[in-house]
Amino acid sequence: MSRQLFLWMTVIALWNTSVIAQQAMGSGAGTNSPEIGEDYSVTFRLDAPHASEVKIMGDWMPANGWVPGSEVMEKDEKGVWFHTTKPLEPELYGYSFMIDSFRTLDPNNPFVSRDVAILTNIFMIGGGEAELYEVNAVPHGSVVRRWYNSPGIDMERRLTIYTPPGYENSVLRYPVLYLLHGAGGDEEAWGELGRSAQIMDNLIAQSMAIPMIVVMPNGNVSQEAAPGEGSEGFYKPQFMVPGTMDGTFEEIFPDIMEFVESSFRVKAEKSFRAVAGLSMGGFHSMHISRYYPNTFDYVGLFSPAILPYQNRTAKAYQDIEGTLIRQIENGYKLYWIGIGKADPLYNNVLDYHYRIEAMEMPHTYHESDGGHTWKNWRVYLSEFVPQLFR
Amino acid sequence: MSRQLFLWMTVIALWNTSVIAQQAMGSGAGTNSPEIGEDYSVTFRLDAPHASEVKIMGDWMPANGWVPGSEVMEKDEKGVWFHTTKPLEPELYGYSFMIDSFRTLDPNNPFVSRDVAILTNIFMIGGGEAELYEVNAVPHGSVVRRWYNSPGIDMERRLTIYTPPGYENSVLRYPVLYLLHGAGGDEEAWGELGRSAQIMDNLIAQSMAIPMIVVMPNGNVSQEAAPGEGSEGFYKPQFMVPGTMDGTFEEIFPDIMEFVESSFRVKAEKSFRAVAGLSMGGFHSMHISRYYPNTFDYVGLFSPAILPYQNRTAKAYQDIEGTLIRQIENGYKLYWIGIGKADPLYNNVLDYHYRIEAMEMPHTYHESDGGHTWKNWRVYLSEFVPQLFR
Repeated sequence: MSRQLFLWMTVIALWNTSVIAQQAMGSGAGTNSPEIGEDYSVTFRLDAPHASEVKIMGDWMPANGWVPGSEVMEKDEKGVWFHTTKPLEPELYGYSFMIDSFRTLDPNNPFVSRDVAILTNIFMIGGGEAELYEVNAVPHGSVVRRWYNSPGIDMERRLTIYTPPGYENSVLRYPVLYLLHGAGGDEEAWGELGRSAQIMDNLIAQSMAIPMIVVMPNGNVSQEAAPGEGSEGFYKPQFMVPGTMDGTFEEIFPDIMEFVESSFRVKAEKSFRAVAGLSMGGFHSMHISRYYPNTFDYVGLFSPAILPYQNRTAKAYQDIEGTLIRQIENGYKLYWIGIGKADPLYNNVLDYHYRIEAMEMPHTYHESDGGHTWKNWRVYLSEFVPQLFR
Repeated sequence: MSRQLFLWMTVIALWNTSVIAQQAMGSGAGTNSPEIGEDYSVTFRLDAPHASEVKIMGDWMPANGWVPGSEVMEKDEKGVWFHTTKPLEPELYGYSFMIDSFRTLDPNNPFVSRDVAILTNIFMIGGGEAELYEVNAVPHGSVVRRWYNSPGIDMERRLTIYTPPGYENSVLRYPVLYLLHGAGGDEEAWGELGRSAQIMDNLIAQSMAIPMIVVMPNGNVSQEAAPGEGSEGFYKPQFMVPGTMDGTFEEIFPDIMEFVESSFRVKAEKSFRAVAGLSMGGFHSMHISRYYPNTFDYVGLFSPAILPYQNRTAKAYQDIEGTLIRQIENGYKLYWIGIGKADPLYNNVLDYHYRIEAMEMPHTYHESDGGHTWKNWRVYLSEFVPQLFR
């Protein structure tokens, strides 16, 4: 291109961002962070010459109980702090910096994921199990954010739906996986933190999964949409959203199914329905699948928040044993439980495993390494989905 | 709910986030920022007791040329820095902090928008013109991210499409607005920074706009998808993406139209097609609308990057006058130009206005206050869309 056009493009490009953005671009433009080396070690750099101490906290570092792992960074002669990891395994990683006790993001990395109210920088070491999380040169499904009416609570609510490649140009009907988030999550969580669209695209392309629709609703009943996407506007999200574990979500779950089955070309039969979820979503999946006991042939409980048995007043939590027995009698194809050995819920999930084993309830119990983490939930999804609708 | 259940929910909610997130939640949990007062003044707080100086930079502050406006914050006895603005007009605002010369985000506000490689915190003062940017209790359209094949460059590419409320449950065909981003943007820009879905929902609900489909493609030809959403993975986005203003986008634009017209229920006629864009997207819209001169009845140039006339080798940039004359002869309903008086492109756009006026090319020339900003582009969109397809 001509030099003049090039200059023009530069000028226009500069104009095209806010002045705030430009100043920041200027100050950090020369800093490359994170830089992934050929041996998959990763170098982080932070241009903060006035700081006394900078630490990096990354989820590849071993945590000490509730205290995350961290490393003190070194400072070069220009005031740029740096740290290089050992070679890392393929995975999607999160990290942040601590500058003189102030937690901050990497200004040179615009990729973040939000978990409840916190943004964390992310990067990926590709290949291995992370190959499923990458956007590869395979056919891509579509991801739509739609609103549906939930008559059970008289509310318009937002959900995310993945349709597989070819859905729009086909007359086929597809099976459906209902995929539920954990406490503090919403209809964005499985897509953003769980890489669900990439996992589905890749599993389908490898013929590891049957093409299916994946429905990712919002499990916080009082919340019409993810924070910032609803009429409440922008507010600081909290862990504790009313109506997430009081039985209401289980009661109104048919509203979601009715919307999906009337709005998408789906196979509206038990043998083509799956429900799975992580943590609170595993709790929801357990209760939904027995409360509507002849509805799902496939159930996935990922690190499920199985609470101790106790009296709960909500109708959806009554007669757990009786409904589980009905679920056994009605039959199903797969009841899959995954839990990490380091998960604080480990003992509860193990108890549940023993309990339903004693009831001779058929199920697959899968223990993995690690804890209550998205790393495990991505892996569980990748292991669960290939078993569906066969 | 029972106290025991409440405690369990708390524990589970804590487990449900990464340990990194928890520590950050802990340290900033008591800090409310931004806090919007009843008089629409806004108070910002930042818990950084070790900092020597903290400034806030906000886009409501007057800039000094390329230097953004900023204010030095005060520090309270607990080491929390604070600043309260004067009452602000309704608008979507961006801001960031500068801690001892280090630009950072507000750790208590998870709402950000990305412009090229920079994240900026956002908040909204509702009402007034910003009422169109809010999620109101009106019917909501759907927003889908889809991939299409572009035979002109033999590439699968990603785009964002808004379909109006009721689209899915109708057999009607709809008009289409092609809405193009600026340099450094991508198929996420009009949705994220432009609030296009909210503006469309609200205009349609107020009967200010005809229900229409809005197609937001990626105008960077060498880029299959927004950064992080394509096979290039996560990388630092640059202003200068090859193939954005070399004529290729104009040449392959029919690939997008063919995809849309074969995949959605649209009225594939000139009188139901509009093309509009901001900055570089205004440049694209100008060239596309004359290069395919009998295709669009509605053209919107928002702060268009109309370059000085010069020789360009690309076929799409040849014979500008001749094709403009053909466009005039073929006729159209609206050719709308919006520019801010403080926009660095002001003189160029004014030149273009005079030039086509001399050619007796019918058009609407609209001058606003302000510069080359998303504030103006949201307003221009809100003014342009009600004039379409009447």
